[in-house]
Amino acid sequence: MARILKDPGVGYKSNRNAQRVIVEGQSNVKHINRPRTIDDLYTYLITISWPLFFGYVLCGYILINLLFAFIYFFIGIDEFRNSSGNIWEDFSTLFFFSAQTITTVGYGAIAPEGVLAGVLSSFEALIGLMSFSFITGLLYGRFSKPKAKIKFSKEILVREFEGERALMFRVMNSRTNLMIEPELNAVINITEKDVNGEFSRQFYQLNLETNKIMYLPTMWTLVHKINEDSPLYKFSDEELKELEVEIYILFKYHEEAFNQHLYQLHSYDFNQLKIGYKFAASYTFDEHGHTLINHDDLNKIIKM
Amino acid sequence: MARILKDPGVGYKSNRNAQRVIVEGQSNVKHINRPRTIDDLYTYLITISWPLFFGYVLCGYILINLLFAFIYFFIGIDEFRNSSGNIWEDFSTLFFFSAQTITTVGYGAIAPEGVLAGVLSSFEALIGLMSFSFITGLLYGRFSKPKAKIKFSKEILVREFEGERALMFRVMNSRTNLMIEPELNAVINITEKDVNGEFSRQFYQLNLETNKIMYLPTMWTLVHKINEDSPLYKFSDEELKELEVEIYILFKYHEEAFNQHLYQLHSYDFNQLKIGYKFAASYTFDEHGHTLINHDDLNKIIKM
Amino acid sequence: MARILKDPGVGYKSNRNAQRVIVEGQSNVKHINRPRTIDDLYTYLITISWPLFFGYVLCGYILINLLFAFIYFFIGIDEFRNSSGNIWEDFSTLFFFSAQTITTVGYGAIAPEGVLAGVLSSFEALIGLMSFSFITGLLYGRFSKPKAKIKFSKEILVREFEGERALMFRVMNSRTNLMIEPELNAVINITEKDVNGEFSRQFYQLNLETNKIMYLPTMWTLVHKINEDSPLYKFSDEELKELEVEIYILFKYHEEAFNQHLYQLHSYDFNQLKIGYKFAASYTFDEHGHTLINHDDLNKIIKM
Amino acid sequence: MARILKDPGVGYKSNRNAQRVIVEGQSNVKHINRPRTIDDLYTYLITISWPLFFGYVLCGYILINLLFAFIYFFIGIDEFRNSSGNIWEDFSTLFFFSAQTITTVGYGAIAPEGVLAGVLSSFEALIGLMSFSFITGLLYGRFSKPKAKIKFSKEILVREFEGERALMFRVMNSRTNLMIEPELNAVINITEKDVNGEFSRQFYQLNLETNKIMYLPTMWTLVHKINEDSPLYKFSDEELKELEVEIYILFKYHEEAFNQHLYQLHSYDFNQLKIGYKFAASYTFDEHGHTLINHDDLNKIIKM
Repeated sequence: MARILKDPGVGYKSNRNAQRVIVEGQSNVKHINRPRTIDDLYTYLITISWPLFFGYVLCGYILINLLFAFIYFFIGIDEFRNSSGNIWEDFSTLFFFSAQTITTVGYGAIAPEGVLAGVLSSFEALIGLMSFSFITGLLYGRFSKPKAKIKFSKEILVREFEGERALMFRVMNSRTNLMIEPELNAVINITEKDVNGEFSRQFYQLNLETNKIMYLPTMWTLVHKINEDSPLYKFSDEELKELEVEIYILFKYHEEAFNQHLYQLHSYDFNQLKIGYKFAASYTFDEHGHTLINHDDLNKIIKM
Repeated sequence: MARILKDPGVGYKSNRNAQRVIVEGQSNVKHINRPRTIDDLYTYLITISWPLFFGYVLCGYILINLLFAFIYFFIGIDEFRNSSGNIWEDFSTLFFFSAQTITTVGYGAIAPEGVLAGVLSSFEALIGLMSFSFITGLLYGRFSKPKAKIKFSKEILVREFEGERALMFRVMNSRTNLMIEPELNAVINITEKDVNGEFSRQFYQLNLETNKIMYLPTMWTLVHKINEDSPLYKFSDEELKELEVEIYILFKYHEEAFNQHLYQLHSYDFNQLKIGYKFAASYTFDEHGHTLINHDDLNKIIKM
Repeated sequence: MARILKDPGVGYKSNRNAQRVIVEGQSNVKHINRPRTIDDLYTYLITISWPLFFGYVLCGYILINLLFAFIYFFIGIDEFRNSSGNIWEDFSTLFFFSAQTITTVGYGAIAPEGVLAGVLSSFEALIGLMSFSFITGLLYGRFSKPKAKIKFSKEILVREFEGERALMFRVMNSRTNLMIEPELNAVINITEKDVNGEFSRQFYQLNLETNKIMYLPTMWTLVHKINEDSPLYKFSDEELKELEVEIYILFKYHEEAFNQHLYQLHSYDFNQLKIGYKFAASYTFDEHGHTLINHDDLNKIIKM
Repeated sequence: MARILKDPGVGYKSNRNAQRVIVEGQSNVKHINRPRTIDDLYTYLITISWPLFFGYVLCGYILINLLFAFIYFFIGIDEFRNSSGNIWEDFSTLFFFSAQTITTVGYGAIAPEGVLAGVLSSFEALIGLMSFSFITGLLYGRFSKPKAKIKFSKEILVREFEGERALMFRVMNSRTNLMIEPELNAVINITEKDVNGEFSRQFYQLNLETNKIMYLPTMWTLVHKINEDSPLYKFSDEELKELEVEIYILFKYHEEAFNQHLYQLHSYDFNQLKIGYKFAASYTFDEHGHTLINHDDLNKIIKM
């Protein structure tokens, strides 16, 4: 019989319009009274888009130079050079001096002369070096942190297979590298109204024909046979479509170019279930015998 | 029967007022005659607080500039520019020159002219680049090193559960990311006076209903059933409270944002044991069906 | 019996002149309609040769300086210094100013005077710091990313061994470090014409006498006994040579100097099969009893 | 019976005065015809001592500045400033100019004026940034690469233990952190003259009472019982001392401060065997009940 899971980490209680707990591989849980930490900041800066990241850097650069320009202006331009007499020109000069200091360019056409200017500009240079150290780390962290690049088929199928009914979906390696030792685990979650009229979730391990392979150059079709051991066995095809079912998937593999183990989460909803279809062939050969994989074919299904 | 552990890494010998070996996930052991290594320094600089870290950087910056200012002053300000005649002004000028050199700002309003000044400032610039390289690495190391962010419930409970007695505690994911493949192992340590009147520790593996799940978006309640297999079976509720017992826990999971496996240690003391209570619900739903998790509810327990 | 593998990640379908899916440890699959990502760029920059990498850096450096020189020239050299009257001299001056800005050298012999020059050079210095941050990361990423350094023997042998036939190949640690916990898994792929006259592949796990050892200082000979459990048992030596067979190998170990787990893929073709040979001794001793390993001996085979 | 190991990665053949293959956790194998790779360079630069590392940096810095000073001198000091008339003074000026360029200090007291000087100094600044990028990476790589810090007892004992003979050694956590999930595997290697009078090695897995624990705050005694399952069972205490035996050990654990899995190799020789001794207590308690571990006690043994 299908193995019922105790405490799968999601909880058993549900309600009528309960949303999925995982959406697009991300947690869909709302947190209350959560204290923020420095790790949240790192996570944020690592995961935002590149334009936003560079936007922050540019704004930060302008703001810190404005700040120091104000401070320098406040202590007086005489600490740096003779005033031009024009307040805007003096301010812009100090702004550029700040930029030249924080980037450590230091042309020297304008340079600190007074003690206060010396102290402040020494401090600004230190801040500059520290900030750019930090950005160096972030840039590399962003660039060297790979995203797991497995693509899941949009549809999940129920079809006849080797004389039995089977549930199938497939995954594609969307990179040109091999994925090494890919492994996939799945949990099936069936929500039913219990005797008290309350909605409760039941979780089962989803048995797959194969769940770990040596490497994945192309596509891989995952097969769950709906036999006596399956929690779906008692339902007809029609009932399956009505059933409130979610499948939570954890995919892991070793990414060679980054030399890291990567994890990717995915979930399917039985709303997406197609009955009586099969997947189109996952690869073809060209005239020289090379295996061809067409990324647009991942979601191609054929009426059986 | 409960599996007795041979040499659990903590030792069997105990005494009357023995302190816990693990406190707040840290070793509580005192070391004698321990030689220090460079790894200790790294560990120290990585684990100190941010204000202390920046404090060290700032102090180091001031001290090294003072040092070079003294050296430059010693070889004579004539190697750089004409003396102002005022000893303090000369010294401050050299201090700023040092700061401009070590940060590689190098305005050039003051620059080395003599050979000795040239050699020393070339060397100082090298030291500056090396030091800031080092700080760059540390900054990134500090920022990219995640802390495992599991929170353990303050209380550990003994309650009736499915017709048996059970020991329970729970853990909460305190981040908004999912924790992937969390796994928890626990060892129970019972200290008893032996026949010779000496205190000795016995260690047992603590069996849990589930000790590994696919991911953890919210809270997870760990359940140890106090049945014939449990080393606690022979004790009544009252005896349990008097017992000198510690539970050592190792929690591990994959942190997605940092792409690292994280480990967290925790321990419970039977002083914290509550009998006849249960945990409040770990999540609720809002009007749109989203799962809500209130971080303040982790420790909420209810009289049964 | 040999375990047949379901969905080994390569696919069952084949055709007459099908190319190998893995060549020299790399995917030999052609991708159609594949969207490119930033990870592809990282992978590219990490895997290209050192001369090409430095070539890109140098070209990028020249191009960005040309670009800024054009912009500065366009806004007018008066924003920096008096024109020399010679257009080429002015342009080269601005080119060098750009280089001094982007590297943050900033001698200051030429420095921005106007507001526009100030803004642009401040921006260029920022770009410079960001770019070199990026290159710092890449350089370290390239340098600290080890390549698995196992060498596979060129030939694969079938010989008599302990009264049975055995398939053998060997691997050599090409580094002076120990390889820690090396592990090798192999899949054998036999392509045959099926009853419909179509070419199809069958995959089997290849049983090895030992497939994991504690560490590997020298060479390691892998032995697959061709007994009843082997998918090769039914074929005579002569038939083996005619057979269309590939062996896909995944080798993993812990690399101590880099403190990383490394993976290496390899494949053998039965075209390479030698029958009735054995490998030459993998090591000898010098006069002081030190073990000697000659890297040229890896492929040395001896007629039995 | 003790499990004989096939191909343990070391080889079976031996000779009269064969040296150990592993000495102090390092490979003791000599390589012939080994091609060098960039990974060897990285390994070298990561593993040399700190003084040697800084020595290389300093020498490299001086040499590259000498090189550029020669080039600048060759193209003529007029490209930078008017000659002082003194050849040594001119050369030292150009040396300092080179240092100011490669470190990007760029005071500007001396600055390129001619086109050739501009081109060369732009190139030198690029080289400087690249080199220091590289050193930044290395510095961090060196600093953040932890060494496994387990200490092994100098002696290995054979003593009576629980009514049987047992082989014992112990390990100590030499850091103040906990070592998480330490695991130890051992292989025993017995060299005997075979029937042909040749020396050959036989390898066995060494069974230990416990070989994996949850964490290690102090010391851990490893126990191999010399019972019927042991390859040492047939030898008397006296014979053991004469036996040519080595024990190869692989220790691994998770280092929390560095968040890495670490591996450490060690080996024992039966020359070190002590018979009829036991280890002194591995810890004591102070007056407040804290566990005390004295690092000097690791090797303390007591006549039984």
